[in-house]
Amino acid sequence: MKLEMICTGEEVLSGQIIDTNAAWVANTMMELGIEMQYRVTVGDRLDDLINVFQERSMHADVIIVNGGLGPTSDDMSALAMAKAKGEELVENVQWREHLQDWFARNNRVMPKSNLKQAWLPASAVMVDNPVGTACGFRVKLNNAWLFFTPGVPHELKHMIREQFIPFIRQEFGVQDISALEKFLTIGYGESSLADTLSSIALPAGIELGYRSSMPHIEIKIFARGEKAIRQLPDITKQVRALLGSAVVAENRPTLAAEIHHRLYQSGFSLSVAESCTGGMITSQLIDFPGSSSYLHHGLVTYSNESKVNVLGVNPQILDDHGAVSVQTVEAMAQGVRAILDSDFALATSGIAGPDGGSDDKPVGTVAIALATKEGVYSQMIKLPRRSRQLVRSLSAAVAYDMLRRELLGEEVIVDYPSIPRCGE
Amino acid sequence: MKLEMICTGEEVLSGQIIDTNAAWVANTMMELGIEMQYRVTVGDRLDDLINVFQERSMHADVIIVNGGLGPTSDDMSALAMAKAKGEELVENVQWREHLQDWFARNNRVMPKSNLKQAWLPASAVMVDNPVGTACGFRVKLNNAWLFFTPGVPHELKHMIREQFIPFIRQEFGVQDISALEKFLTIGYGESSLADTLSSIALPAGIELGYRSSMPHIEIKIFARGEKAIRQLPDITKQVRALLGSAVVAENRPTLAAEIHHRLYQSGFSLSVAESCTGGMITSQLIDFPGSSSYLHHGLVTYSNESKVNVLGVNPQILDDHGAVSVQTVEAMAQGVRAILDSDFALATSGIAGPDGGSDDKPVGTVAIALATKEGVYSQMIKLPRRSRQLVRSLSAAVAYDMLRRELLGEEVIVDYPSIPRCGE
Repeated sequence: MKLEMICTGEEVLSGQIIDTNAAWVANTMMELGIEMQYRVTVGDRLDDLINVFQERSMHADVIIVNGGLGPTSDDMSALAMAKAKGEELVENVQWREHLQDWFARNNRVMPKSNLKQAWLPASAVMVDNPVGTACGFRVKLNNAWLFFTPGVPHELKHMIREQFIPFIRQEFGVQDISALEKFLTIGYGESSLADTLSSIALPAGIELGYRSSMPHIEIKIFARGEKAIRQLPDITKQVRALLGSAVVAENRPTLAAEIHHRLYQSGFSLSVAESCTGGMITSQLIDFPGSSSYLHHGLVTYSNESKVNVLGVNPQILDDHGAVSVQTVEAMAQGVRAILDSDFALATSGIAGPDGGSDDKPVGTVAIALATKEGVYSQMIKLPRRSRQLVRSLSAAVAYDMLRRELLGEEVIVDYPSIPRCGE
Repeated sequence: MKLEMICTGEEVLSGQIIDTNAAWVANTMMELGIEMQYRVTVGDRLDDLINVFQERSMHADVIIVNGGLGPTSDDMSALAMAKAKGEELVENVQWREHLQDWFARNNRVMPKSNLKQAWLPASAVMVDNPVGTACGFRVKLNNAWLFFTPGVPHELKHMIREQFIPFIRQEFGVQDISALEKFLTIGYGESSLADTLSSIALPAGIELGYRSSMPHIEIKIFARGEKAIRQLPDITKQVRALLGSAVVAENRPTLAAEIHHRLYQSGFSLSVAESCTGGMITSQLIDFPGSSSYLHHGLVTYSNESKVNVLGVNPQILDDHGAVSVQTVEAMAQGVRAILDSDFALATSGIAGPDGGSDDKPVGTVAIALATKEGVYSQMIKLPRRSRQLVRSLSAAVAYDMLRRELLGEEVIVDYPSIPRCGE
């Protein structure tokens, strides 16, 4: 099945909106084992729309068209489709009544402009949209089914999941028998990961995919077909063994999500003292509803005075070892943990750059500590030639991973590929 | 001049990478007054590339091709262009020598694969890339100049600014006489902004554009031509007057950038105590190198115990008024300011949702305070029906704006459109 996508809308074409819909659709299809083959982005010009529908429908089997289903005059996907096929727009009575009901139920007067959303090309099959006022529809032209979807992201996602995928399953016999395992890694580049995993003999139906999601590379292991799915656990085990400590989470979108999940379930409390990571560790956890149940506080103690006055770091330690040292982060972690007697505390202090480095401690030097009720662990890592943003996000990832390993009862400090420690 | 773009690369097509290059290019061109007309995204299949070069070169005057200039076998933009034009690849000696020099200067052995990057279509004009190993090039085919650029974002941006824009200025006489003013607003939706500004009679050559960049809407005022540029200050003044307090920054990408710039210049120091904003105020400032010169600390005191123990909030205030109250945020701001006697302090406490609201203080209720050496200002705002993320980012924006107004000597607390205060 040859799948293509046509994205419409002046805002998307002109870069006023970054097209995350296109990436989401392609990614979602890939997880079903269907590759996106081609994508065209056009603005709100009727002729461009008509031409692209006619032209691409000669090549593809299915085309997802996104956007242009709204009530305003620059929403013209239905009109363009009707013209491309040489047919009229016809009112879909079912959808008009649905809209009238919807506005009545919400005690709102329906603007006249919304009536337009019920007019579809004569040969169109209406596609339900229970979460918005724009129905979808599909039309066969030349070789292809064109499947029209709304531009609002959550409406698009709902329609792809509930309507589009069942449609292609039925129409093209797309198989349901696929499975997917995801690993989140740190420290490896994409080509080193591929090299490391090249020794695995992949059976038919199993494929590896890589996705950069800094500071991580995500590895996806797809299995298609019943036999491949039976072999998936063995391949997953081999990948885990070859990558060792580079794997920091399995089947989670981010390492912060992994930590949130574990802390939320466990009832343990956490405090954080951040210097170079600047609140990143704290704010990534606070993104999750429910984080208030375990997070006592996250203190960004940027100045030395703040480390002393807020965290109770002994000024002598700062004088003797400097702000970026294992001694200082240990004192920071122990200090922030003690304020509310939290179960765990994380602390970071480093030189994120672009300035502030020295010969002894160049840009990218970061000290990280984990304090528990029993003791404290620390390490100082080197992240040369990384951007300020990447130094910070890699440091946060290493800190999270120290806590993750402690929560699992594993060794807290381990070697990550291409993240050397100072003095090594 | 009809401008199009062709984005290449399997990762972009399959959604493994969100295509921010495409948005950046279209946006940059729009600021020059040139609209992007059409965009195609193709993978790393030679036939697709050849076909799309041949087909789109019939329609466009200029096509920016992005990606596929690297050293590996799936980088095939040059080969596809040569085949599309029916010519050979020829080694560009100048670029080969440049690569050899570059590796020698960096004491590195040049991998053989890099030699490929010097092979260009026979009729190509080489385009310099001082920041990477992939040179660009341009080729005339049918009606169009195809201009090939590297996929690495900072290399692309450099080449567009330093090479592509001068080229189209010379080749197509694109005028340099344009000017742009940008306003960052809060509180208005895009359609209310357009309604509010519809009373302005725009002279020929002046256009308004809107861009959603939550929690802000950015307004751009373009002027094209000498006469329009002379009229720009007057239009800008009218926009400013009509929007009033909704404008929170001019010609800055974000409100955090505005605050960073003002604090960095002024020498004043800042401390932050955050509850519902969860570190957002602090971390947006720490994104800027140099923020350590004014930021004392940012304390995310999520629990009541932390507000008491770290900030010195009187427990009686929490008992009497609750954590989300003007009394509590005032005590938080005064407390965090006092620790290091900072010039200014900001504090937030609110209910970001989706749970945790009450009849009295529903989800979206947020208290915000600014403490100075002389006193304290506070307000409690209502942000119903917003996502957790938007409640947090709007609250951070209001807090920044209170500080911005104080730094300018303006009234600190003002009405924003569609952000009511509690008790109003």
